[in-house]
Amino acid sequence: MELKGRSIIGWADGAEGGAQFSAINPATGKEIAPKYSSASFSDIDCAANLAAKAFADYSRRSAKQRAAFLREIGKGIDAIIGDIIERMIAETGLTEARARVEAGRTSNQMRMFADIIEEGSWVTAHIDRGDPGRKPQPKPDLRSMWRPLGPVVVFGASNFPLAYSVAGGDTASAFAAGNPVIVKAHPAHPGTGELVAQVIRTSARACEMPEGVFSILFDGGMEVGASLVKHPLVKAVGFTGSQRGGRALMDLAAARPEPIPVYAEMGSTNPVFILPGAMKLRAGEIAAGLHASVTLGGGQFCTKPGLVFASAGEETKNFAKDVAQRISASAPHPLLTPGIRSAYDNAVATRQRRSETPLAASGTAPAAGLDVSAAFFETDARTFVSDDNLSSEVFGPSTLLVSAGSRDEMLKIARGLHGHLTATIHGTPEDLAEYRDLVEILESKAGRVIFNGFPTGVEVTSAMVHGGPYPATSDGRSTAVGAQAIHRFARLISFQNFPDQALPLELQNENPLKIWRSVDGNLTRESIAAAHAAV
Amino acid sequence: MELKGRSIIGWADGAEGGAQFSAINPATGKEIAPKYSSASFSDIDCAANLAAKAFADYSRRSAKQRAAFLREIGKGIDAIIGDIIERMIAETGLTEARARVEAGRTSNQMRMFADIIEEGSWVTAHIDRGDPGRKPQPKPDLRSMWRPLGPVVVFGASNFPLAYSVAGGDTASAFAAGNPVIVKAHPAHPGTGELVAQVIRTSARACEMPEGVFSILFDGGMEVGASLVKHPLVKAVGFTGSQRGGRALMDLAAARPEPIPVYAEMGSTNPVFILPGAMKLRAGEIAAGLHASVTLGGGQFCTKPGLVFASAGEETKNFAKDVAQRISASAPHPLLTPGIRSAYDNAVATRQRRSETPLAASGTAPAAGLDVSAAFFETDARTFVSDDNLSSEVFGPSTLLVSAGSRDEMLKIARGLHGHLTATIHGTPEDLAEYRDLVEILESKAGRVIFNGFPTGVEVTSAMVHGGPYPATSDGRSTAVGAQAIHRFARLISFQNFPDQALPLELQNENPLKIWRSVDGNLTRESIAAAHAAV
Repeated sequence: MELKGRSIIGWADGAEGGAQFSAINPATGKEIAPKYSSASFSDIDCAANLAAKAFADYSRRSAKQRAAFLREIGKGIDAIIGDIIERMIAETGLTEARARVEAGRTSNQMRMFADIIEEGSWVTAHIDRGDPGRKPQPKPDLRSMWRPLGPVVVFGASNFPLAYSVAGGDTASAFAAGNPVIVKAHPAHPGTGELVAQVIRTSARACEMPEGVFSILFDGGMEVGASLVKHPLVKAVGFTGSQRGGRALMDLAAARPEPIPVYAEMGSTNPVFILPGAMKLRAGEIAAGLHASVTLGGGQFCTKPGLVFASAGEETKNFAKDVAQRISASAPHPLLTPGIRSAYDNAVATRQRRSETPLAASGTAPAAGLDVSAAFFETDARTFVSDDNLSSEVFGPSTLLVSAGSRDEMLKIARGLHGHLTATIHGTPEDLAEYRDLVEILESKAGRVIFNGFPTGVEVTSAMVHGGPYPATSDGRSTAVGAQAIHRFARLISFQNFPDQALPLELQNENPLKIWRSVDGNLTRESIAAAHAAV
Repeated sequence: MELKGRSIIGWADGAEGGAQFSAINPATGKEIAPKYSSASFSDIDCAANLAAKAFADYSRRSAKQRAAFLREIGKGIDAIIGDIIERMIAETGLTEARARVEAGRTSNQMRMFADIIEEGSWVTAHIDRGDPGRKPQPKPDLRSMWRPLGPVVVFGASNFPLAYSVAGGDTASAFAAGNPVIVKAHPAHPGTGELVAQVIRTSARACEMPEGVFSILFDGGMEVGASLVKHPLVKAVGFTGSQRGGRALMDLAAARPEPIPVYAEMGSTNPVFILPGAMKLRAGEIAAGLHASVTLGGGQFCTKPGLVFASAGEETKNFAKDVAQRISASAPHPLLTPGIRSAYDNAVATRQRRSETPLAASGTAPAAGLDVSAAFFETDARTFVSDDNLSSEVFGPSTLLVSAGSRDEMLKIARGLHGHLTATIHGTPEDLAEYRDLVEILESKAGRVIFNGFPTGVEVTSAMVHGGPYPATSDGRSTAVGAQAIHRFARLISFQNFPDQALPLELQNENPLKIWRSVDGNLTRESIAAAHAAV
């Protein structure tokens, strides 16, 4: 497939002539053709206006039509998967195996959301029937459901060029709920982004969707993203990236004349607590699992375990030696961009300079391109609590083991944690009983609490919560992954005393879509008449 | 019951000595004893710390225990209802009938949320069972539910001294979800607030709730509220009041090191569209209903219809005459505070000065205290669209009739509307068919769309949505009234591979609470074993 290096605005290509930039191959450090033109202000305004116009149409398409559109995108991605993977590997330095898993997840997410909206119960229909004879006032008939918000801006993630970028989870859930999407492509993988964007445009035309249901804008800098977030026709934002970047967008959105929700997934350090019983029983197994989780994909996951807590003692010393040996034997891995690599190198160098946080081991020396070595640090609880920098995320294949002197010290550390996407506990049933308060503390610090496992590997199911208190995300009430992500891009609306045929299908008496509804407080898939008869 | 004029911090009374203020009786314009002391910074900090400590305990109380607490509050309010109503009438100038309805709603809301949490399905449990044998990676067991957020600050509303103040809908839903509450009392009705606060404190002790589950702070100014919103231990805010006040809190919350959600219900103008068929068929009935809705409780409802649109013509002229006659015959009504009265008088005077917005009628002249007269204005569509001030809320017994020259002009007006809590259409089935696009536009502008009714009278049921796009509320995705309000004060959390007995009851295999859960995508109240067998 030919790459044009230009934004896509509805059915048309964006203007040429903006500041240009290129992707860089992390394996070689060299630029990859073609050059990409940054979007112009007129491109931005045009995409927003087309999206607002498309909203009136797209938001009223049947769930079946929207599902067909999502499936067509999934099929389209699968159809050119070879091209996509080749370009993605060149732009990211990730392995082919990883690229294939992520590609599968991406088209599967499209199909999952298609299934969800076809089934239809996600709209959470509530029907409270009226009583015209009630005294002193008649009781009105009220029916509520979730409806889409309006044009959504999605920022592509550097570390998930497929599953959290152009046709990723944010886009899939926003489309599924009935919103048009404008993607601000990540500049590190513009070619991958354009290939996927072409699939979406082709799918939108094939499914006779309105022009403007999708646009993608490229930019080598920050201006296009900021302008999109400030555009009055944009109604919500999805973002995956750094805390600094996410907070900047939150601040822009909050300062608008009409503030809008920003769902920013800003990563975290994903603390792992190894309790004494587990350390005694299976230190080797945990060391192997930890090492695999820390170095997976070059440690470039927002769920990478960057902090490990264990009780000081002989067993933890041996565990540390085991981890150190594994880290020493780790091959170098290229990081995604020159910026990410230098941030990693700087963070590692800063820790290394401090005598209180000795470098216990580092992996094989870098060989080429944007390669870095894995790094394993150790410190004690006192040093950890005295320096907030030690709890911040180091994006890349690095982790820090903190030895705690006592159970109380472990709990104190847990209480002092900021918000994280995940928190993990390794323990025996006896450990769990003894550390019940640790579980309770971690529940208030993370969106997902894991027992005897590792945080990397985010399952896309309806019970997944990929969220967590600030600063892990901008909005700790929600999830960015899995079925429940769809509600981020929807709002509640209630219809009072509407004639049946003027109601959305989901709220009509007959329940033509056969969805689960709460009728006068009882969950049922029956029609109103049948539900009434049954009561 | 004796009023002390002091804040209540956990089980203790707040410090004396802060700046003092008194309620004013709107019927007489005179101060009412006792004087109230504004809370000190140490009161604020103490309330926040107690609340954070109480959270760890209260958030883990069983639904049954929390429900008993809510019911005890409802019972306590009912027990001193005479005292409460007497004080409320003195502080607000509202009628006894209105006060009794609101008091009933307040204790009913407590019981409704008690029912909701005892039934338990609000936590939206999702269980996706694992598959240890899945290749290449085992599939983890994931279980998610809604859990409370942490200490919630609730700002009492001037116009709902019971149902949206100390023990109002925000407090009830925050308590129900498992959060401690700190109320910032509205300074216009401190005595009503203190009486209810004493009930809550007594109920908390009787139900053996932790100290700090509830506090109330008084303040004659703005500082206590601002300090609470900025306090690092506060995790969410509920507010009912003006757009300026709400936006100020939104901005404070967004600028925190850790931004927190603010649910501000800031009122709206609640546009009413009277379509030609309805105008022909039942202009008199609509005029009577509109007049009643505009003047109810002195027009001091956030759902008061402040804008009415109709097609220019003879029938609308007659309708306007009818409304004008009814307004002229309206008795004066005292407004809640001197500030609200002067804002109303100024807004009415400003409209009256403009020749394009003639005063079509005004009610009987004010007699005493904070009395005002009802006011009815008319204008044409061109004037309306040219002046944004005409679409802003005038809090009090006033409304504006706008005549549109054509269907297109009506649609143009609708498209230009800001966000509102409600939008209303009066029409025949033929009108609805002809104005289908009007319904679609209004859906995107309001949280509740009403057919052939009036927006005042907010039913407290599970299908009620008292929300709507900014500036009607800070967060148009949610509702402030009804069962679904509980999710405002909760967050999603997922447990991965947890031993059954370490899970919350809601997620355990046996389903001991018998709640509705999604198990592997199927809604069921069965235990896991039974659900599995059925598949």
